[in-house]
Amino acid sequence: MAWFLEDSFAKTDVSISDIFSRNKEQGQLLADACNANFVNDVAYLDDNADITFVALRDDAIALVANQLKTSSIVAHCSGMLSIDALSSHKDRAVFYPLQTIIKNDLPVASQIPICLEASNAETLRIVESLADKISHHVHFINTEHRQYYHLAAVMVNNFTNHLYVLADDLLSKQNLSFDLLKPLISETARKACLNKPLLNQTGPAKRDDRDTIDKHLNLLNQNMELKELYEKITQSIFKLHQQNEI
Amino acid sequence: MAWFLEDSFAKTDVSISDIFSRNKEQGQLLADACNANFVNDVAYLDDNADITFVALRDDAIALVANQLKTSSIVAHCSGMLSIDALSSHKDRAVFYPLQTIIKNDLPVASQIPICLEASNAETLRIVESLADKISHHVHFINTEHRQYYHLAAVMVNNFTNHLYVLADDLLSKQNLSFDLLKPLISETARKACLNKPLLNQTGPAKRDDRDTIDKHLNLLNQNMELKELYEKITQSIFKLHQQNEI
Repeated sequence: MAWFLEDSFAKTDVSISDIFSRNKEQGQLLADACNANFVNDVAYLDDNADITFVALRDDAIALVANQLKTSSIVAHCSGMLSIDALSSHKDRAVFYPLQTIIKNDLPVASQIPICLEASNAETLRIVESLADKISHHVHFINTEHRQYYHLAAVMVNNFTNHLYVLADDLLSKQNLSFDLLKPLISETARKACLNKPLLNQTGPAKRDDRDTIDKHLNLLNQNMELKELYEKITQSIFKLHQQNEI
Repeated sequence: MAWFLEDSFAKTDVSISDIFSRNKEQGQLLADACNANFVNDVAYLDDNADITFVALRDDAIALVANQLKTSSIVAHCSGMLSIDALSSHKDRAVFYPLQTIIKNDLPVASQIPICLEASNAETLRIVESLADKISHHVHFINTEHRQYYHLAAVMVNNFTNHLYVLADDLLSKQNLSFDLLKPLISETARKACLNKPLLNQTGPAKRDDRDTIDKHLNLLNQNMELKELYEKITQSIFKLHQQNEI
């Protein structure tokens, strides 16, 4: 997340004064990338910065935020953590980019929804002006709603990617190529961005095609865990489409 | 599937002589679209056609194929059905486009993998020359391997789309917008086409972040079915990444 913020703000007129990290090597690399000072103790962070981002794991955020002496804005970037994790700071905010972020393949910020929350109107105005510099999709979202978005994000990213992993594994074991699935993966995502996903559903589970389902289950006899997952998701699709009668 | 074949071959020098369908209205529409004759009885199909596609549901293919009098090639387009479903024809083939196909939003054929199988070399040569006219990705795949591809396709399309449906439903119930997930959905698919999906996995299940997982499960207390599915997929991710120690 810190690398994403650096990469995004480096393209704007925002200047980054200090980088703190417990990992000295990574912290120094990041600081070098944005011409900032690297500090290895939060006590040395610039108290006069307009905003301090605590871009850490959820369980470290409150701990580090409590050590910050700044009287200006402190923001975290978590999808799940309440804004109250920063309650030791009067001017606190959440700055949550709703995207999967991997350091060596950073996404382009402009299309990413940035979910903002702040403890007061003036703080919200400032974080909004920052978010506007990097994204065209800035939203005001409270903690409860942000948590629902995070859960939905886990479903469409982590869970979906896990299905890709399992499909890759299934094909590899037969010496078959995952490459043949790539046009289908792209098309499935493209359609979800155009139509309501319910209208895009096809396949044996939706139409209760027991013959095809049984053949698939047979192919999974050597893979009981995937077989069980296949059955659960198939049941879930069948039930939902029976309810919707489509 | 018939609409996809018509749409794809219409852009080539292949001429379509006859269309048979049990649905008179749809069959006539399709025939009109490709300047073909509509026939409502297989007995009236042109016996001299080079190839007859039986683009029907799996359970109807053998039935209709057995009624065909043609001595030229008969092909089906199923992912799961054996080529032997056409065993009443000496020159039989499978022509399976590995893609999700919905009539009112047909995919572009050129990027779609076409999986071919045939009962003899000359038949394979002819269906290959046909497939080459519409796609740059033609593969020779036997029935067993095609069935694995079909199963994997169900996982990355039907199952993935079902997760989109459930995420849409979850957000709708909170009056939140599925639109915010779209950049994430696109990015997840894009990454799967670039790297091995195992390397793209992120999220609470992979890192066994119980705090986040418990918060998600709490949000699902009113939706026991999705809660159970969430738990199953989370367990599956956790186990797999524990095994791989990444």
